[in-house]
Amino acid sequence: MSTSPLDYSQDPPRSQYDLIIRKDKPFNAEPRIQDLVKHYITPEQFMFVRSHGPVPMHLNDSHIITVQGGENTKEFTVGQLKTQFKKYHVMMAMQCAGNRRDGLHRVKHTKGVIWGAAAVGNTTFAGCRLRDVLHAVGVTSFKNDLHVAFESVEQCEETPCYGSSIPLCKALDEFGDVLLAYEMNGKPLTRDHGYPLRVVVPGYIGARSVKYLKSIIVQDHESTSYFQQRDYKLLPANVSCEAEAEEYWCKVPAIGEFNVQSFVCSPSHEEEDTIKASGIMTAQGYALSGGGRGIQRVDVSNDNGETWQVANLYQPTLTTSAHIWGWCLWTLKLEYKGYPIVSRAVDSAGNVQQEYPVWNYRGVLNNSWRTVNL
Amino acid sequence: MSTSPLDYSQDPPRSQYDLIIRKDKPFNAEPRIQDLVKHYITPEQFMFVRSHGPVPMHLNDSHIITVQGGENTKEFTVGQLKTQFKKYHVMMAMQCAGNRRDGLHRVKHTKGVIWGAAAVGNTTFAGCRLRDVLHAVGVTSFKNDLHVAFESVEQCEETPCYGSSIPLCKALDEFGDVLLAYEMNGKPLTRDHGYPLRVVVPGYIGARSVKYLKSIIVQDHESTSYFQQRDYKLLPANVSCEAEAEEYWCKVPAIGEFNVQSFVCSPSHEEEDTIKASGIMTAQGYALSGGGRGIQRVDVSNDNGETWQVANLYQPTLTTSAHIWGWCLWTLKLEYKGYPIVSRAVDSAGNVQQEYPVWNYRGVLNNSWRTVNL
Repeated sequence: MSTSPLDYSQDPPRSQYDLIIRKDKPFNAEPRIQDLVKHYITPEQFMFVRSHGPVPMHLNDSHIITVQGGENTKEFTVGQLKTQFKKYHVMMAMQCAGNRRDGLHRVKHTKGVIWGAAAVGNTTFAGCRLRDVLHAVGVTSFKNDLHVAFESVEQCEETPCYGSSIPLCKALDEFGDVLLAYEMNGKPLTRDHGYPLRVVVPGYIGARSVKYLKSIIVQDHESTSYFQQRDYKLLPANVSCEAEAEEYWCKVPAIGEFNVQSFVCSPSHEEEDTIKASGIMTAQGYALSGGGRGIQRVDVSNDNGETWQVANLYQPTLTTSAHIWGWCLWTLKLEYKGYPIVSRAVDSAGNVQQEYPVWNYRGVLNNSWRTVNL
Repeated sequence: MSTSPLDYSQDPPRSQYDLIIRKDKPFNAEPRIQDLVKHYITPEQFMFVRSHGPVPMHLNDSHIITVQGGENTKEFTVGQLKTQFKKYHVMMAMQCAGNRRDGLHRVKHTKGVIWGAAAVGNTTFAGCRLRDVLHAVGVTSFKNDLHVAFESVEQCEETPCYGSSIPLCKALDEFGDVLLAYEMNGKPLTRDHGYPLRVVVPGYIGARSVKYLKSIIVQDHESTSYFQQRDYKLLPANVSCEAEAEEYWCKVPAIGEFNVQSFVCSPSHEEEDTIKASGIMTAQGYALSGGGRGIQRVDVSNDNGETWQVANLYQPTLTTSAHIWGWCLWTLKLEYKGYPIVSRAVDSAGNVQQEYPVWNYRGVLNNSWRTVNL
């Protein structure tokens, strides 16, 4: 654990963003909620940034990634990964496990950056497939209980470096679409988003999409990193402080896939007040689910959940495909009746957002459709 | 469509079951709810039976299955499938999409057999992998939008034969565990459960696990069967009759994976009354989720959802594995306070059961934790 304070003086300039800063050092910021639904593919200007420490410096195409699988260890520069492996594109929603933490924090104190509902975005990534790189070190078949651990160059406030892992079967799944990405939205990754190379794990919480990748190890246990073992877990509601959490970290599984989610982005709560006069409004929002589950329906209510109307969905992927990684934007014209507009999404497996928040200490995976002010 | 009534006179004897008959012809029956949690592996005596027509007769190991993939068509007898392909075992929960339909039917009339909460069970199946059989006809790689359609020998009340389909990527997934099964719980399938051969699709609603299998076809569209196209779909709440459903069948996706679920089986509602006197009781129930998502927590409440306690889980699979197909049994000792005991499960993706039923005309995928008597 580093004892001297981390140095943020070399963080990149950020004037190009249109974001609300939730924490300055490390830099954590999300867009205004009404900006989030202006584009189906989120421009970087409106893409949330989640950092755990200072942005690494002096990295480029000669940065070396160590890949270890079984007896084999190989090293690849970022440049080699770009030229030696086929390039793939994945359009996917990236969502922080702490998206909408504010809703749980209003119920009771939570630990973590107090995100609103915009710690999510939908972008295209390009890079080589992790599957292909693992094949190149001889990892082709797999057991359910093997894992791929990622380590980052990123120095964190909590630990010397960021790390995380995913099950090997996700990594090797032909339709798992896990990439070692070097582009976002058709341009090289920027420093805030993981330059020169990051993992992207579609359908999983953002914490598993490790930025500034340094090493990949296939092993028989999960990453031992703080971020896999003592964070990003859904603790039971009776755990409300660090001391109580202590005995639960080893009992509760690390989060992989996220749950079904939706939110009304426009009008924002502030805008609703000014819209009252006109009577009719067009509500807009996003919806998404984890694990490749598409959204099959979004219900919207203007009367406090008494009645629901079905929204129009925009989710331009094959409706028959097994995996849908991109989010769904939705709109619905409806009358303003004095209540906040609320939405409730149903995913392809029939999972529905719950009504009230189920509070948890780390404030993760909040997906209640009712926003409670206590 | 058959015009003369179907003949049920040759259905098998059923005196060995300990089931409540929900419909006689075709035979549909489920166990008493308190019997369901007596065994982690459900004995056939307590395993629900779901039929769509008379049980097919005169089938045995020489029954022929036609398998068509691309240009290739091959025929295999059941006997050949047993000897020419490696045998695999899968322990999995089988759940009817209509499990707990009674809860929705109490809200408003639904169409279908009025199941209680025991149209689910957890058994072991053995057979060859569909993946291996598809490889044998040359289907080895795949596109997301291809499907595997299954046809059954079973004549149905609704159509000449039962049929259904799953995405090809589920069928070919090395960890999808889709079997062509000839054994259940270590014995040859019985006639009520699909003898001589059935599909089993772990993590999907039971309707996709086609019994009395006749043919397998890889095609670029879903099965055109009634049961894929005009049934087993989660219609929006504004659809409340056949006429209204007409325009929605083609807009709503067919259900594949099921949602997060749990139920208090013991004490049953009837037993609770007699237990009041003693004050303390041990509640028992099941929990499960679709798509290989395990159960990470079951909360139980004895005060109408005001407070929740964490149940003890029994789910003997690798906690680190990516796919958990078996169900979870849980127990919790708690005080009786005059309210029905209710349970609320959380799956590995953080999906939680909703509080109130979201009614749908076909009465499928009911997973609310509150049971409403209106």
